[in-house]
Amino acid sequence: MASPVASAALKSRVARKSLLDKLARPQDLIHHFPNGTYIGWSGFTGVGYPKKIPTALADYVEQNNLQGKMKYGLFVGASSGAETENRWAGLDMIERRSPHQVGKAIAKGINEGRIHFFDKHLSTFPLDLVYGFYTKDRPHNKMDVVVVEATEIKEDGSIVLGASVGATPELVQLADKIIIEVNTSMPSFDGLHDITFSELPPNRKPQLVMAVEDRIGRTTLPIDSEKVVAIVESDYQDMTAPNTPADAASRAIAGHLIEFFEHEVAHGRLPKTLLPLQSGIGNIANAVIGGLAEANFYNLKVWTEVVQDTFLDLFDSGRLDFASATSVRFSPDGFKRFYDKLDYFDGKLLLRNQQISNSPEIIRRLGVIGMNTPVEVDMYAHANSTCVMGSRMLNGLGGSADFLRNAKYSIMHTPSTRPSKTDPHGVSCIVPMCTHIDQTEHDLDVVVTDVGLADVRGLSPRERARVIIKKCAHPVYQPILERYLDKAEFECLKKGMGHEPHLLFNSFDMHKALVEEGSMQKVKSF
Amino acid sequence: MASPVASAALKSRVARKSLLDKLARPQDLIHHFPNGTYIGWSGFTGVGYPKKIPTALADYVEQNNLQGKMKYGLFVGASSGAETENRWAGLDMIERRSPHQVGKAIAKGINEGRIHFFDKHLSTFPLDLVYGFYTKDRPHNKMDVVVVEATEIKEDGSIVLGASVGATPELVQLADKIIIEVNTSMPSFDGLHDITFSELPPNRKPQLVMAVEDRIGRTTLPIDSEKVVAIVESDYQDMTAPNTPADAASRAIAGHLIEFFEHEVAHGRLPKTLLPLQSGIGNIANAVIGGLAEANFYNLKVWTEVVQDTFLDLFDSGRLDFASATSVRFSPDGFKRFYDKLDYFDGKLLLRNQQISNSPEIIRRLGVIGMNTPVEVDMYAHANSTCVMGSRMLNGLGGSADFLRNAKYSIMHTPSTRPSKTDPHGVSCIVPMCTHIDQTEHDLDVVVTDVGLADVRGLSPRERARVIIKKCAHPVYQPILERYLDKAEFECLKKGMGHEPHLLFNSFDMHKALVEEGSMQKVKSF
Repeated sequence: MASPVASAALKSRVARKSLLDKLARPQDLIHHFPNGTYIGWSGFTGVGYPKKIPTALADYVEQNNLQGKMKYGLFVGASSGAETENRWAGLDMIERRSPHQVGKAIAKGINEGRIHFFDKHLSTFPLDLVYGFYTKDRPHNKMDVVVVEATEIKEDGSIVLGASVGATPELVQLADKIIIEVNTSMPSFDGLHDITFSELPPNRKPQLVMAVEDRIGRTTLPIDSEKVVAIVESDYQDMTAPNTPADAASRAIAGHLIEFFEHEVAHGRLPKTLLPLQSGIGNIANAVIGGLAEANFYNLKVWTEVVQDTFLDLFDSGRLDFASATSVRFSPDGFKRFYDKLDYFDGKLLLRNQQISNSPEIIRRLGVIGMNTPVEVDMYAHANSTCVMGSRMLNGLGGSADFLRNAKYSIMHTPSTRPSKTDPHGVSCIVPMCTHIDQTEHDLDVVVTDVGLADVRGLSPRERARVIIKKCAHPVYQPILERYLDKAEFECLKKGMGHEPHLLFNSFDMHKALVEEGSMQKVKSF
Repeated sequence: MASPVASAALKSRVARKSLLDKLARPQDLIHHFPNGTYIGWSGFTGVGYPKKIPTALADYVEQNNLQGKMKYGLFVGASSGAETENRWAGLDMIERRSPHQVGKAIAKGINEGRIHFFDKHLSTFPLDLVYGFYTKDRPHNKMDVVVVEATEIKEDGSIVLGASVGATPELVQLADKIIIEVNTSMPSFDGLHDITFSELPPNRKPQLVMAVEDRIGRTTLPIDSEKVVAIVESDYQDMTAPNTPADAASRAIAGHLIEFFEHEVAHGRLPKTLLPLQSGIGNIANAVIGGLAEANFYNLKVWTEVVQDTFLDLFDSGRLDFASATSVRFSPDGFKRFYDKLDYFDGKLLLRNQQISNSPEIIRRLGVIGMNTPVEVDMYAHANSTCVMGSRMLNGLGGSADFLRNAKYSIMHTPSTRPSKTDPHGVSCIVPMCTHIDQTEHDLDVVVTDVGLADVRGLSPRERARVIIKKCAHPVYQPILERYLDKAEFECLKKGMGHEPHLLFNSFDMHKALVEEGSMQKVKSF
């Protein structure tokens, strides 16, 4: 097999010329990936992921009818591009996956039992990785092959990553072999990254970020060239989807939140510039950031996982001074806006390891305002972020718990209801007891829905339940939830077990009514 | 009312002589505590708490039949002495309490609905306190009166605390009035504390502990003398109970754990000196530390909340080099041993703010080995630390989640069963689904019972369930739990919702069998 010839574009991106000798065609690298290989990819929230190698492997499996015969352990900081990991799942190429994923085929594989998925706090995943916890039963305790997308290779062999950092530095640290995909279809991100390394205890050091804009690492990711078995040219951009627009409910939620921030400023508990903002993914998050672009707060800063389109609006509004994240996941239009004025972001944006962006240490020190969307919240302020009906995995925990446990303000925002097949309000997002718990009652300060905002700071469980039902539950569910709470209080207080009253054996009856009668409104037992 | 005369003992402890002018009798200070006062006490795990003022107030209420008419918000780092807060609860003097408590009367008050209790991570409580979250509806946003036990007052007015630091520095920071109880019945603890202060974001700084023995604060707690309304002499020691001895089950657990540590050392994932140890309270914790005093590990260090009697044995065995905690809670015999060689602990022990002892930042940096005992653990590795049958509060969360979320090794140890009234194995501590969740499946690495040890690192939920049932469940419950899991897998995988299979509407049936038939063994639905 002849080596391909390096394009001018590729040559302009690879300053370490010896690596050009390792240029290969993806289809010639299949032998590095025997069945059972543990593979790491760069990438986070569907950007910065390798494109050519995953596609070549999928093509190979498809063309040779090897579905289910080439299965891998796949480790990526968070989700990857749908055309890669989701296609792999459809071809039954994933045996094990961690810590987060997005895609219909992969969700299907997980929930039908073909893919062993385990989700970890995004801050913990890279740590446990370098501790050797995930490779402890592998030969050499290593990640067999790590495939990394770069936008440039420097003369010292170090690489400039693309639109995400994620867990790539730690995956590289643990790699036995490395393949670099140099993406020539997007600009170099040189200067936008802040890359750190993971010492093991007892030698770990403080993460010395004291303000959102503090740089603590390097701009490039050092790579041991001896481990590089090949480089590949990659020729298309991150395949992202358009933005989810804000709807009436999410705008209502944003309104309640902005009012709350104004209230906290007025009472001296928040500075006028607020504190660093963390915002999750989805239309509520977009509405909140969109709302801030029109609100009366200036010199804002963002300390978050993912920077999305609405943050561009916030920059454009002149209200946002700096954003720190582990990825920029824009829509195709958003990426165009971003690349068109890339220089503008020099000194306004840093992309860091997810271990840093989601660091409990830094989130707590900075006093972040953390905002996330759950599957459901219960009246005592536990939240379910991952498993519908206690069992069906959506995407994984992500960084929700990193932020909600450590933020100064821990906020869950959700629509008060979602539709079921037969009832536009068939699912109440406020329930008596969550069917799966990812965030505990000890973690949340504020719950907000389109109905209103419940401030539960300093409240006992029974007080919390009253205010959450009153302020957050949809009016059709308020009387239902109140009946549950009244009955649970009566039964439990009588028995001297009423700290957090539950009708334990009826606590999921609203969910049962949904399954059996199509709507939680049809519950009869309380 | 005449001022009392200062004893020679008191004079020898109070270098700031102007404070002697504020010497008062406890019974003359009742007017500082009108009904509804928000009160802070020093103290943590039943040591270092004020003794004279609480007793005088309780006497006053009792003598004047004011039960239920003088009720307070009571904030203490963790539990206080039984003769104080538990007596207050019995006299219906507590309206609101946070974040942790111990005592039959107080548990009764909470579970019968008279006391609004909210429990918070012990690291978060002092933070939320200084943020003003708990006093936001109070005049001046302050803690009305803070009563602090000291073992000495320095010339600059700063005080030397006693056997605990807890949340005392933050309570003092937020105090409107301060009363100091100078305890002359125990030696001065001068030099054993490391006291830090809480800046608010955006001005918070790193907690620069890089090794267990690093001192980052002051030996004494500065006090604004103008806020001191009185000092009182206190004349008896912390009223602690004898140690809980190890039993056969807890010794078996300790054996499994020590074997696991040896295995991790052999595989290079732990240094020979292990990593800093955190150990909770109770007979299992005592057995584990006791076991280490006979095991083959040397130069050990401890980074924990509470130092107990067994740590004295570990020091005596020559294996323990240094211990950091927020309190020393010894038995009466243990305190005697401790006070008899107090000088020995200079350079071997530091007591710090609970915000530091339980700091996610430091726990994660040091790579702590965290070990705690739950109420129950479920087969997917969630754990209940607080509420029996989902509703009845025991003592509170404590620091369990601070450690388990951030430790390098997150370990839950529990007996495999506990007795019910009619069956010595009536309660399985391994259940299908926890009735309350304080620790999530994303937090635990290892579950260990007298039966064995389940290492769940890197496992998917279904894999986790198999290994936990096999290694940890009591033999009489293994077939029961396997039947549940088999049936749940079958039902959920069929429906494409089998990531974490549950029979949602039967998930508490073992608890139901316990309530209705006296033993979880009597479950019939699976």
